[in-house]
Amino acid sequence: MTQPIVPLIMCGGAGTRLWPLSREGWPKQFIALFGEHSTFQDTMLRVADRARFARPVIVTNAAYRFIVREQLDEIGADADILLEPMRKDSGPAIAAGTAFAVAREADAVVLALAADHVVRDRDAFTAACAAALPVARDGHIVTFGIAPTQASTAYGYIRPGKAIAGAVRKVAQFVEKPDEAIAARYVADGYFWNSGNFMFRAETLLEEYRSVDADSVAAVTAAVETAGRDLGFVTLDPEAFARAKPISIDYAVMETTARAAVIALSCGWSDVGSWRAVWELSPKDADGNAARGTAVFDDARDCNVIADDAVVALEGVDDLVVVATGDAVLVARQQNGGLKRLVAKLKAVVPRVTESHLKVHRPWGSYQSLDAGDRHQVKRIVVKPGGRLSLQKHHHRSEHWIVVRGTAAVTVDETVRTVHENESVYIPIGATHRLENPGKIPLELIEVQTGSYLGEDDIVRIEDDYRRP
Amino acid sequence: MTQPIVPLIMCGGAGTRLWPLSREGWPKQFIALFGEHSTFQDTMLRVADRARFARPVIVTNAAYRFIVREQLDEIGADADILLEPMRKDSGPAIAAGTAFAVAREADAVVLALAADHVVRDRDAFTAACAAALPVARDGHIVTFGIAPTQASTAYGYIRPGKAIAGAVRKVAQFVEKPDEAIAARYVADGYFWNSGNFMFRAETLLEEYRSVDADSVAAVTAAVETAGRDLGFVTLDPEAFARAKPISIDYAVMETTARAAVIALSCGWSDVGSWRAVWELSPKDADGNAARGTAVFDDARDCNVIADDAVVALEGVDDLVVVATGDAVLVARQQNGGLKRLVAKLKAVVPRVTESHLKVHRPWGSYQSLDAGDRHQVKRIVVKPGGRLSLQKHHHRSEHWIVVRGTAAVTVDETVRTVHENESVYIPIGATHRLENPGKIPLELIEVQTGSYLGEDDIVRIEDDYRRP
Repeated sequence: MTQPIVPLIMCGGAGTRLWPLSREGWPKQFIALFGEHSTFQDTMLRVADRARFARPVIVTNAAYRFIVREQLDEIGADADILLEPMRKDSGPAIAAGTAFAVAREADAVVLALAADHVVRDRDAFTAACAAALPVARDGHIVTFGIAPTQASTAYGYIRPGKAIAGAVRKVAQFVEKPDEAIAARYVADGYFWNSGNFMFRAETLLEEYRSVDADSVAAVTAAVETAGRDLGFVTLDPEAFARAKPISIDYAVMETTARAAVIALSCGWSDVGSWRAVWELSPKDADGNAARGTAVFDDARDCNVIADDAVVALEGVDDLVVVATGDAVLVARQQNGGLKRLVAKLKAVVPRVTESHLKVHRPWGSYQSLDAGDRHQVKRIVVKPGGRLSLQKHHHRSEHWIVVRGTAAVTVDETVRTVHENESVYIPIGATHRLENPGKIPLELIEVQTGSYLGEDDIVRIEDDYRRP
Repeated sequence: MTQPIVPLIMCGGAGTRLWPLSREGWPKQFIALFGEHSTFQDTMLRVADRARFARPVIVTNAAYRFIVREQLDEIGADADILLEPMRKDSGPAIAAGTAFAVAREADAVVLALAADHVVRDRDAFTAACAAALPVARDGHIVTFGIAPTQASTAYGYIRPGKAIAGAVRKVAQFVEKPDEAIAARYVADGYFWNSGNFMFRAETLLEEYRSVDADSVAAVTAAVETAGRDLGFVTLDPEAFARAKPISIDYAVMETTARAAVIALSCGWSDVGSWRAVWELSPKDADGNAARGTAVFDDARDCNVIADDAVVALEGVDDLVVVATGDAVLVARQQNGGLKRLVAKLKAVVPRVTESHLKVHRPWGSYQSLDAGDRHQVKRIVVKPGGRLSLQKHHHRSEHWIVVRGTAAVTVDETVRTVHENESVYIPIGATHRLENPGKIPLELIEVQTGSYLGEDDIVRIEDDYRRP
């Protein structure tokens, strides 16, 4: 009996191609684009069978650590969570996860998966993993090649070479994203899309990477060896990790190694790289219109509406994506090559809407601003069962809290009291205070702040369960 | 010295062509589409010169009485305000206003104006009124004909006949909205657009109307004679008014009378009958894009964005109107012939967004829902200086009020207390209570309701300054 495959889930990216749903603070892989789970959660569920897959290793950015923990809790999954102290592209991230896997299990076979891809046919995926395993164990780096469904110009292609074992073949060549004419030829010639998901023996990958850039592998390995542990997270050593050269795994390893193999995969795959891809994956009415939220169409075709709260009405238009969130509305051609440029413009004009959502997640729960005036702000605050905000005080504002669901334990200076639904409590300016949910259901409260300055940075943290500055 | 012209302002309409800004509860004529004033206010200001114009008569729907009063107060204007108990189209409305004018001033000359039109050149308008006056006094019904700026198919046309006096000519014929080819011929032949604004001796109009439908004129005249007075409004008698036949003034009088005259008017006129008309009247950037609120354009041309709070971003589109309000977003071709159909669909699916805005106006001020959950709702309430809500109680909810600006006088059962900024008060379920602004600046408060039922209809009114049921 051989040991199972170690899934290595890469979820540190901060893509802008699905703005305004995807934002820096809560990017695409954590959004439930289809159904109830995020693509990160679906990716975790895809490797949940412990007979085939070992405990996963997750590599993410430190900024996303509490999102990852929360989304794992939601699906009852667990994993080793490695925190990158800074972004270094996929090469160092995969190398770090691989070094961690090999430290945990000598001779590990690693399955490196992007957390923001859709796979509709889980069985086909599992079967491809099973077919790739012996070839990977044999010392190949097996990449999952997607059988093209169209002559796409959005992906790199793989030219397959001679057979290795069963459906697994040598990689003859990785080729860059083509133009349309060349893409059509590639498809006719049996090339695959490069999905950016791989299987390999940990040692194979590290050897190949080392042969190209030994210093970076040494840096990453050191970052794993001297990693800290904090609140259950593995914190890669910042000084060591900083020495790794930022590079994608394709450039670092795949395009140079002689050990690349490819297995064809037909599993309803998409990297959901554009709003058009979301539309393609969504159920549509007879006019080709897709809708999430309340949408009304008149004389509209092939449109995609995603609406948080507002009703969205379309008239006399076609091929548009309309995304209406509380603080930002996108109206764009579905085939939106310009979205990256648009988001760059937004970042210059109103950076707030590229950075975070109206609803801001915290390790203890979330808050959302409901109203803001010159001298007041209203927020809805949700605290998870057992969650506890930092012990804090404010220089410039007082706060009224009205509990509308659940039970709060509220500390104000020396006193602690329990506040129930439909009760309120007042936090005078300058008072040391803390909010906690001692109950079994989420605590919801409405906070009304009044004062001369209401910025998030007017928080003096005296003590914090989550070790934030 | 002859007596001045009596302006008769028609502002009872509830158009849908500018949805979602225009809604039944606060329609187009009351919206500040351009600059700080609504078209109703601009219309009032256009006839503010008391040397030329007498105290205006306003005919509006009973539902809009407090909006009219508030908008008059804002511009320091006053008028006799006639309330229609029901909608009967423009014929009975103009007849009622005219009957009221003649009762106030025998031999009155009336200037009937739509409240939802834009006139950019006020001097040209005033000059046309002066030129029309002697002809109207002479017994003609003078309609203002707009010199066409394009071969529009959106208006009825007027074929002018022989000269009467100066620039005023007989009307040879009123013609229906034409198709494009015919419109072009009309323009070449010197026809005018029918603006639907008129000047006439009161007795002339009533005589002509009587010759076609004497019963309706008798009904309307009776409704004026037996009208009540309530809070300063003139309430047309519902029983009498109900007997009038609903018909437009064009059909009732203009297309049959032999006394129709027309004066050409070039005054930057628009009836703002579509979003395209709004775009035409708005300042635009080099790409032809107009924006109110925060908009970011990339590869977009000839678009119009109106955004309340959200940032609106457009990419790769042209000739669109995008209107983003807190609860409804419209995306449509600017030349939106289908908007009426779209709003009819919306009325079936989500009538709320066709009926009222998120911000609901009341005679004492306004409120806006900020957040709604299963068992709680949060509102921002603004009470005008001197404003007072009804003495009321609720069966199903308690309320927390936090004053964030100004000072409140709060009655709870037998006690009255003054509540200042940053203070709160609790209204237990079932308690008789009242909110009043005794101060000189607007009172703003945040209301947090909790309870099992939070509908607006859970109000038992015990006493009300504004005589609402």
